[in-house]
Order: sequence, then C-alpha cells, then structure tokens
Amino acid sequence: MADLFADRLAEAVLTKASPVVVGLDPDPARLPTEVLKGPSSGDPRADTAQAIRAFNEAVIEQIAPYACAVKPQIAYYEACGVPGIQAFEDTIQMAHDAGLLVISDIKRGDIGSTAKAYAAAHLLAPVSGDAITVNPYLGTDSIQPFLEACHTTGSGLFALVRTSNPSASEIQDLCVDGKPVHDHVAELVARWGEGLRGSCGYSSVGAVVGATAPAELAKLRALLPQTWFLIPGVGAQGGAAADVAPAFDSQGLGAVVNSSRGILYAFGDPSTENWRSPIANAARQLRDELADVRNKGPSLTTNRP
Amino acid sequence: MADLFADRLAEAVLTKASPVVVGLDPDPARLPTEVLKGPSSGDPRADTAQAIRAFNEAVIEQIAPYACAVKPQIAYYEACGVPGIQAFEDTIQMAHDAGLLVISDIKRGDIGSTAKAYAAAHLLAPVSGDAITVNPYLGTDSIQPFLEACHTTGSGLFALVRTSNPSASEIQDLCVDGKPVHDHVAELVARWGEGLRGSCGYSSVGAVVGATAPAELAKLRALLPQTWFLIPGVGAQGGAAADVAPAFDSQGLGAVVNSSRGILYAFGDPSTENWRSPIANAARQLRDELADVRNKGPSLTTNRP
Repeated sequence: MADLFADRLAEAVLTKASPVVVGLDPDPARLPTEVLKGPSSGDPRADTAQAIRAFNEAVIEQIAPYACAVKPQIAYYEACGVPGIQAFEDTIQMAHDAGLLVISDIKRGDIGSTAKAYAAAHLLAPVSGDAITVNPYLGTDSIQPFLEACHTTGSGLFALVRTSNPSASEIQDLCVDGKPVHDHVAELVARWGEGLRGSCGYSSVGAVVGATAPAELAKLRALLPQTWFLIPGVGAQGGAAADVAPAFDSQGLGAVVNSSRGILYAFGDPSTENWRSPIANAARQLRDELADVRNKGPSLTTNRP
Repeated sequence: MADLFADRLAEAVLTKASPVVVGLDPDPARLPTEVLKGPSSGDPRADTAQAIRAFNEAVIEQIAPYACAVKPQIAYYEACGVPGIQAFEDTIQMAHDAGLLVISDIKRGDIGSTAKAYAAAHLLAPVSGDAITVNPYLGTDSIQPFLEACHTTGSGLFALVRTSNPSASEIQDLCVDGKPVHDHVAELVARWGEGLRGSCGYSSVGAVVGATAPAELAKLRALLPQTWFLIPGVGAQGGAAADVAPAFDSQGLGAVVNSSRGILYAFGDPSTENWRSPIANAARQLRDELADVRNKGPSLTTNRP
C-alpha cells in the first residue's frame, strides 16, 4: 500500500508551514485578458481551455511556495467540454510537477457500481488527484469503492458534512434525535475513515466543513478528532481566517483551508498586466493569517498519537 | 422560452406508449467482445471509448422503438478520460438523432457559482442532455442555476429524493419531526418545480425515487402529485415492474422507469455474436410489463389539469 493520504497531507502542511489550499476555479469571465488573447483554434471551448491551462500554470507557479495543495473544481473544466477535461488533467499534472498535492473537487456520489467507475476516473487513472471530494447523500455503499481506492493507491476523500453555502442549512441542519443531519453524516465519515488512519493521527477520509458556519466547525472538530477538515468559504464566501481557529490541533494540523476566488482573482481588473504578483501575495497573506490563527495557543482538541 | 421538458417527456411517453428509460452505463468488462475488437489506437482509454461509442450506437438502434429516453451515466465515460467525454457527447447526439430524449445522469450538486458552471456544461452546451440528475444535499442555492437553465432552454432536472441503493436509508431515511429526510427533500423539490409546470400537469423538476423502496414510492407519489418521477432500480438492482405501479397516474403518466444493466447486458456472455436482439427484447419486455402495470386501473392520484 502507498503512503496514506492523511500522512502525505500532514507532511505537506508541515513542510510548507501552510494549510492553504488554492481552489482552481477558472471562470472565463474573470481571467486576465492576457491569457485569453492566445491564437484561436476556431473552437471557442478549446480556446477557453487553453486560456485556463495558461492561467493555471501561472497560478501554480505563483502560489506553490505558500500552499500545500490545489483544489481544481471540475465544473469549470466540464464547462469547456472535451478540451476542458484535458485541461483538468493537465492542471493535475502541472500541480504535481510543482510538488503540490491535488484535491479534485468533484463531489461525486452514486450507487456502488457507478462509484466504482468514478473511482476509476478520479483516483485510479494515470493522472489523478491525491484526493477527491464526495457527496454522502447515498450512504456507505456509495463510498465503499472510493475507500478501496484509498487503500490501494494512498489517496484520500473529503466527504461533504456541512457546506459553506447559504442554503446548506436546508437539509444539512435538519434536526434528527436532537442532532442535525450533518452530525449524523459526521458519524458516518468517522466510521468510513477507521481503517485509514495514518501515523499523523488523522484519517485519509476527511470532511468538508465550511468556514461560514464557525459554531458548527468547532462542534464538528470535537466530534471528529481524527478527521482532516477541508474548509472552504474563506474569502469570497465571507469566512475569515479567525473563524477557522477551532479546526486546528496544537501542532497546527487537522485542517486545510481553501480559498478560490479570493486568491485567483486578487488582481481585480482582468485588463491589468500585473496579475501574477497579486495572486502570490493573496496566497502568502492567507498563509500568514492562518499562521497567526494556528499559533494562538491550545486548540479545542489534541489527538496526536 | 423553449417547450418545457415536462411536456416533451409526456409527449415522448405517449408517443412511444412507453415510460422505459434505458440507462447507458457501459462497463468495459461486460461489453460484447465484438465491439471491443476494433483497431487499437495505442491509447487504451481511447480504444475503450471507441468500443463504448460502437456499443451505444447499436443499443440506441435496438431500443429506440421501445424507450422514451436514454440515461447515460457519466461516470462510465469519465472513467475513459478525455476520449470518454467525447463518447458521452457523441452518445447524446446519437440518441437525439434517434428521436430519444436524453437524461444525463450526472448527480451534480455544488455551491451556486459552481452549479452555474455545471449548468453551462450539461444543460447549456451545444450538445446537452434534455435533463440532468442533481444531488440536493446543498439546498436551494445549489439548484437555482439549473432552474434558470430549465427556464431558458426547456430542459429538466431530476433531484435525488430516495435512491435505490441499499445504504440509501442511512441519511435519506433519518427521521426529522416525524418525517424522513427524503420527505423534506421532496418538499424542496416541489417548491423548486413550481415555476416550471407544464400543460401535462407535471413540472420539469422531477424526483429520483428508487423502485427498491415501494412503500416510499407510493408515499412520495401522494406527496408530489405534480412531479415526474425517474425510477431506477428495476432489473439488476432488484426492483420489479409491479413495484412501480403507484407511480403512474390514470393516464399512465407521472413516471419514467430506468433499467440499465438488465437491458444493456441482456445477452449475457460477452463472446456471443447474437447480442443485439436480446437488448431489443429486454427493452420491449420492460415496456410490456409496464404497460400492464400502467393499465391496471385507477392509480393513487390523478392530477391531470
């Protein structure tokens, strides 16, 4: 068996002294004019995919010193059709070449036979992310094929528990036996991760918990002391670095924090020629803000082995 | 605005006298040897994608007289990487050319900005399905961009309510205020569909309700009298045609019934040369079984305008 994702993630966070994950959500309307100006192939989707590739190459170069991982959001690549999927694969390869871990943000979830095909696509393919996000709504048998892939390839999962969007509460916060649905999902996540705990103390089966719900974050940290958290929602979605403090253990491990738009489009006006350094600066700034938060003293939990 | 998906589906079911949806879940291990024997390109995934294309072309030809729609499951195409996505697009085109509606089984669900990209990819692209399946776990704002696409292009959605897999109950059946989570999801689905009701009486926002849970099916029918049901789980997953009887209204509308493996691999041994006609026969047989069920007299509900 390959090294567990949980341990590879811990190593990356410690090596970079950064839990920053940069979400690669390339929105064509916000890309720098410069990368959109390449020669046209005659196929608008291929042209956009080429611009995405050029943009991501620059972003990866800029943020590599300050981030432990990137999280390409596959929707933006699917929107460019076939050439977009090639750009997605190329992006994974570029990030790996830059020494970054890759969390493929795909949020798949389907019956077992289908999940097996998704695992082949996104964890077992020649070019695959180190981890994927998954949707838990279909329960354990929809996760099982991914767990098997985690065992054979040392990859990881982040299951949606409490997401960062405004409507998350509609289903995830419904109250069952005095506890919200997302607590029940958290218990499933803990069970799914039992066989995949690494020497860092955490499991390769993580949880997505939004920064926009700090109270839930603190509670879920206590409920899931051995689960890596992937925390979206910082930056454009309104979460602040300070909101994620409860997620870290005394070593500054236990959570990685994603920002997408807040870093990618830090340059503002797409027509600017000076778009690279604002991206680097935004990533560094988030790293520094999180360093303050991670060093602020004892966290709620400690689960080091 | 284009014709509503709800009405186009009703027309297809009435024209074909069939609510049969054939799931196009091409598992390379089960494809006929004959289609796998094409010339090799040197890229195994491209070869598999080519075999899938050839298989789907034959399947579509065989089942077109007996089905109203096909439901390609994108996981099997993603598993072939970039050439697989081309095969997915080609499959949609082939099905449309054969006069079949296409339900892209993608089960996407993400925050609003991402859902917008998924809508661009799967409802607004030059070659798109007529409807998609969506996962409701993130709530209303994750569905909104899809609803907008339904308004502009006359496409449709089927949101997961109660799925057909064994672990579906873990989250979907948790009890909230005396009702399972999936009833609460059903209420959201009804709300999402309000602005998209067609002259057939049903909305373009449908629900996925598994045939493997007949009691839930009957209850959800009563709860969602104006919602098209997409019913998987007949055949390989254990559901029988008789189990879906409560889903139909007195006109035989209100539900479409998917079978994937039970039809695609009806020929059994992949080495057989006679694999085409068993596929046609299986589709015809399911149509006939459902005709008996649909004609069995008054259903639980009637909601014709």
